[in-house]
Parts: sequence; structure tokens; C-alpha cells
Amino acid sequence: MKIILLGIKNNGSLHIGHLLSIIYPSINFLKNNKKYILLILIADLHVLTYINNIDYNKKKYNNYIYKILSIFLSLEINIKKVLIYKQSDIKYILKIFWYLCNLYKFNRLKLTHIYKKYLNNINIGEFIYPILMASDIISLNVKYIFIGKDQKQHLEISKYLIKKINIKLLNYKFNIPKSFINKKFNKVLGLDFKKMSKSNKNTINIFSNKKKIKNKIFKIKTSSKKLQNINIKKIYIYYIYKYLFKNNKKKFLKQCKNYKYNFYKIKKNIYKKILKVYKNERLRYFYYYKKKKLLKNILLKNKYIINKIVYKNYNIINNIFK
Amino acid sequence: MKIILLGIKNNGSLHIGHLLSIIYPSINFLKNNKKYILLILIADLHVLTYINNIDYNKKKYNNYIYKILSIFLSLEINIKKVLIYKQSDIKYILKIFWYLCNLYKFNRLKLTHIYKKYLNNINIGEFIYPILMASDIISLNVKYIFIGKDQKQHLEISKYLIKKINIKLLNYKFNIPKSFINKKFNKVLGLDFKKMSKSNKNTINIFSNKKKIKNKIFKIKTSSKKLQNINIKKIYIYYIYKYLFKNNKKKFLKQCKNYKYNFYKIKKNIYKKILKVYKNERLRYFYYYKKKKLLKNILLKNKYIINKIVYKNYNIINNIFK
Repeated sequence: MKIILLGIKNNGSLHIGHLLSIIYPSINFLKNNKKYILLILIADLHVLTYINNIDYNKKKYNNYIYKILSIFLSLEINIKKVLIYKQSDIKYILKIFWYLCNLYKFNRLKLTHIYKKYLNNINIGEFIYPILMASDIISLNVKYIFIGKDQKQHLEISKYLIKKINIKLLNYKFNIPKSFINKKFNKVLGLDFKKMSKSNKNTINIFSNKKKIKNKIFKIKTSSKKLQNINIKKIYIYYIYKYLFKNNKKKFLKQCKNYKYNFYKIKKNIYKKILKVYKNERLRYFYYYKKKKLLKNILLKNKYIINKIVYKNYNIINNIFK
Repeated sequence: MKIILLGIKNNGSLHIGHLLSIIYPSINFLKNNKKYILLILIADLHVLTYINNIDYNKKKYNNYIYKILSIFLSLEINIKKVLIYKQSDIKYILKIFWYLCNLYKFNRLKLTHIYKKYLNNINIGEFIYPILMASDIISLNVKYIFIGKDQKQHLEISKYLIKKINIKLLNYKFNIPKSFINKKFNKVLGLDFKKMSKSNKNTINIFSNKKKIKNKIFKIKTSSKKLQNINIKKIYIYYIYKYLFKNNKKKFLKQCKNYKYNFYKIKKNIYKKILKVYKNERLRYFYYYKKKKLLKNILLKNKYIINKIVYKNYNIINNIFK
């Protein structure tokens, strides 16, 4: 059984940036690679790096776990091949983490971009969390990992540590994980044309309630000029068509023509179209999100399955040192 | 139930420095303070900071756990009031540790003497282990802690973190642990007149086999001058009498007179006297050390008792953030 890993922090809702860049690609990858299973790690231990912030809100962050799970279920994943689990449910993750902490030089960890960006003004947890990521990976003997560009450096730390463990093993070798960075949608633009991300507050979430979606769409900046006279790549609604309805430039302009280049009408169409195109996903999402007991059961079931995998790998590592 | 904590690393045998400076005092403290229990933490997670060293020897370190336990048993401790346990047996210790890592600034941790001594040439584990010590303490809501002078600074880190947790609690406050540093025997001198410690390789261990003790005693440097003509504080055998037989200077000189100031005879007497004075402790030590099953059962029993205490405190901390 070969494992693909995809980690998601439960510090915000999943937006279309997530869907396009990692979630759809990972599910598609699975369809074409029958021997794999896809593990979705909800990185709630990583989210604990925020506990010192004044706006830390445990209820909100806990709710995101169920939101993320509901979104995956709304996409009609095969729940036998896509296992969603909570990082904090994994019994030996912090023990493996502690081993790895003792195999990595302080000096080396100071080279990470997170350290270089914030220098000394970070918590110990933020400083050492790339080691926790390495523990997530080695504990599952991951073959492929879906990551964003900003995690490439952290993956190198994992690879270094896995190689270090492998040197000490005679009859077994852990996989050196291959990263999968989606080129096509690597950078999904947000409403402000920066990279779409929770922290940039420029996201679109097709699983929000109708009112929120409407507000977001109607607040998009347009131009006083008519659409046919401007560079459409500077008007965000073009990207909405591209990202959400798979329209290319030609198709998009044709659509606009139908609406006589009236921005108000175009936006109204976008809003209606989101509700229509994503009708079933939205229905399923709101259905599942209410079924807390079902969601908890899924997490519980996956907890046992994944702990079993981790236990095997933990024993291999533990035997080296204890 | 008030808790006194005493931590011992299983990276070497206990020598007379340990006995005089922390073990006897902590057991005596217990006799005079009936409401307390004494927990002996065998810090095997801290010992994992050595796994990257070429001379790391897991079997040797695991054996020290049983040696330490046997020494305590040889001292006829009340095993209902003195609980010896393995740090790695405590389920939530690393989870509390991870919380605390996210409440402590990187910048602040760089002020520890271990960092200042080795600067960047340390492992992440060595850098962050004062936070693990804080986890040991808060997880047991320790009232008193027996520490060496070199751990005073680390205890301040623990206090800072406990206060930080307490601020977030309304109806409960964790103890701010009081340290107990034995003044009389704070610095037990080793064979080279430096502080007696495993790393200085200058120890005397009354639980070694006879041959080892004999060799150690007979190798002690003396003087070509007769004892009555020299400063006895420069001859180590004086300290042996002081530490092991509670002789003061006067008594010691009287003893020497009996042996006509003959170093060979004095050493022979010391060797015989160690075996005689510590006969029962030594007999019990070797008896217990062979009883692996009994030792394992003690550790197992204590594991359950202490996990119960820790679980209560873990829940209080966990409820703040999760």
C-alpha cells in the first residue's frame, strides 16, 4: 500500500485555491494510480503554534476540522481510499518528532525561510515545526506528498532526516518522499491578484453561505470602461470564469458579449452560476456539516487505521534507539 | 497529595555525589514532611538527546534504568511514598511539551547556558529540552523540586511557563515549584577535586563490584610526604572519610594515626570499610538488580499511578487550547 499525503491546517475554510492547486489534483492522481491511498492530514498540532496569539479561538479552529472533512465528503471521495485524520489523534507522532529533534542540528534549522523571515520573534513551536512535518511523513512512510511551493524547503529537511534514519537501518529503508507541486494551478490568484490564501484575506469559498458569496462577487473591483476595451487579465471576474467554470479567454469574452458587457449583469450571472454549477457539492457539504456524529465516526475510524500504520513505522525507529 | 520531584538521567550509574547531594536529602525531606510523596523521574527522554553521538549505546542506557531503580530499593525506601518512573512511560508528557513550545519565545530560550556554551553546535533536542523539563514539572503540579545548581536557570523557564498557563486559568492554579538545593553537599568533589560528575569521570560508586572499588581507591593520588606534614584537604582520601564515613578532620587524623600514616594501609582500610559500612545496601542492590521482572513490575505499577496524575493536569491544560 503506497501512501500519498496531503496536509491541511484547520485554521480557515478551504477556498478555491486549495481546491484547484491540491485537492482536485490529489484526487485525480488517485484515480490514475490505483495502488495508492490518499491520506488527508488535518494538521491541528501545527495550528497550536498560534495559541500564543490574542485572536486564538479554539472553537473556531475545532470547527474548521469538521468543515474541511465535510468539503472532502461533498466531493464524493471514495472513503476507503481517501482517509482524513487529525494529526493529534496519532499516538506516536510526537515521540517520533522528539527522536528527529535529536538528529537535527540547531544551526541547520536556522536556514529555514520561516526563521529568516521572523528571526528571533517566533515561538519555539514555529521554529521547530518543520521537524514535526518530517515526523508526519516518516511515520507514514509516505511515497508522494502534495505541497505548496513554500513547503519545498521543509520537505528537504524531512528528506535529510529520513536519509539519516535509513543509514541506521539494515533491512528496511523508508521512502524518500517525492513532492507533487501542481504547475497549472500552483498560484491561484486571490481577489487582490496576490496569491490566494487565508492570511491574505483574498479568498473565494464556494462552500460559504449564499449571502457571503454574493457579497464577495459584487464587491469585486471592475472598471468604468467597457470590458471589450480593457485588458481582461486586470479584471478579477475573468479569473472567476477561468477557475470556477473552466472558461478560457475566448469563451469568457463570448459570455460577456451575451451580457452586453454589463458588469452588474455579469456578476449576477457569476453568482447564479456558482450556485448552479456547485449545487450538488454545496448541498452535500451542508448536509454533512450538520452530521457531527457521522463526521466524528469517520475521524475515529481513520484514527485507528492510521495509528496502525504509524505504529509499525514507530517501532522500526524506536528499535534503533531504545 | 503534594509532590516532590527528583529527576535523574539514565546515562550513568549513580555515584556518591548523587547520594549525598540529592538522594539522601530528598528521602530525609520526605521523612519530615508526611504529606508529600517523592517522585523519581528517570529522564530517559532527555537521554535521547545523545542519540546522534557515535558512542550512543541503547542497551547500556536501558540498563542504567534498572541500576538506578535497584539503588533506590537498596536504600529501603517506602515504595508507596517514593515512586520511581520512566519519563517515556508518561503518555501526555510530549503533548504538554508541544503546548509549552508554543508559549515560549525562541529569543528567550537562546539565553540558556547550554545554548551559550555550545552555541549553534547543538541538536534541536538539546536546545529545547528545558521546555521538556517544564512539561515534567507542570504535568505533575510539582510543589518541590530537587535540582543541581546548573538547573536553576532551567527551573526559571518552567516557572515562567507555569505562570503563563496560570494566567489563562480561572478556578485553578498550578504550583510554582520551589527548588531545593542542598547547601551542605551541593558540591561533592570528585577524585580530581572537580565537581563529581559522570562527564568528569571522577566518580566513586559504592554499588560497583569489589574489584572496581578497590582499583579506584588504590589509584587515588597521595603524597610522598607523611600525612601529618601535609594539608589533608589536598589528599582525596580525606574526602572519602568525610563523604562515606561522616568523619570530620579530627576523627580522620585519629584514624590515620592508628595506621601510622601509612597510605597503603589507610587505603586498604577504606576499601574494607566501604564494604562493611555499605554491606547491606550492596547486598540488596545486587539482589534487586537481578530481579528484572520485579523491577519491571514496579515501573509498570508506577506508570499507571503517575499517568493518572498527569492525565488530570493534561486535561486542564488541554481544555485551555483545544
